[in-house]
Amino acid sequence: MKMGKTEITAEPGVPQIIVTREFDAPRDLVFRAHTDPDLLAQWLGPRTLSMSVERYETRDGGRWRYVHRDAEGGEYWFRGVFHGDPSPDAIVHTFEFEGVPGHVVLETTRLEPLDGRTLVRTVSSFESVEDRDAMVASGMETGVRDSGERLEELLAKLRAK
Amino acid sequence: MKMGKTEITAEPGVPQIIVTREFDAPRDLVFRAHTDPDLLAQWLGPRTLSMSVERYETRDGGRWRYVHRDAEGGEYWFRGVFHGDPSPDAIVHTFEFEGVPGHVVLETTRLEPLDGRTLVRTVSSFESVEDRDAMVASGMETGVRDSGERLEELLAKLRAK
Repeated sequence: MKMGKTEITAEPGVPQIIVTREFDAPRDLVFRAHTDPDLLAQWLGPRTLSMSVERYETRDGGRWRYVHRDAEGGEYWFRGVFHGDPSPDAIVHTFEFEGVPGHVVLETTRLEPLDGRTLVRTVSSFESVEDRDAMVASGMETGVRDSGERLEELLAKLRAK
Repeated sequence: MKMGKTEITAEPGVPQIIVTREFDAPRDLVFRAHTDPDLLAQWLGPRTLSMSVERYETRDGGRWRYVHRDAEGGEYWFRGVFHGDPSPDAIVHTFEFEGVPGHVVLETTRLEPLDGRTLVRTVSSFESVEDRDAMVASGMETGVRDSGERLEELLAKLRAK
């Protein structure tokens, strides 16, 4: 695990994607960037898309929904619910792309403190390997890598304040 | 897939458990037995335990919580949230055993109509193979097999009414 590098693991036959990245920011700040919708909208997703959060109820049973928009006006809506109250130990929520409904993913994000830095690890569990492979084929890797870089940039700005 | 037999699949290295069973009842009735808490409490779990449902909010973001009690007064609480409004196509919810918190499972149950009968298939997706193996080691198989038999018995009673 190196600083400034996103690692994406998608093993053959295993219906999961595991994303890890280390950030040069304390855990509380990284947690806030994951749970404050105004901050979330500044880093989540590919750089080419803008993001608007419709709702982000960070509590047990709370629902979330947001949209990514491209320059041509195309919209990509996503939604899910939170399991448990989010904490730095675990942010657990479901995830569904409304464009291809019926393929629900469980995402568990854990923030591990590392002497002032933070290791973020997200496990996405799919109903099937086919669902997982469709997500990989959709080009999610660009979004994940952009998100990591954008979050790093946002955290640097927030720390400089 | 034979009538009256529960099949449990837990492949090595894959963090899932897949349970299938065919029932001699129409899909709507099987769906009701999965979503009406008064019916659920009559079949879910091992025969040796009694069940009480504290809440069962079958809607998007709805929470559920129930307890299994043994003859000695021991209590086993479980909880989770629903993703989306449950339908016969898919009942999707998270699942957590409060006795060992922090290990959240995504359960997707699909009811397939088969000429008056119904094939029920539940995929449980775990965060890790270790979590899955711990669930298998806990003796869940007895509970799953008892549940299938008890649901079959309940459906026969409901159909006879």
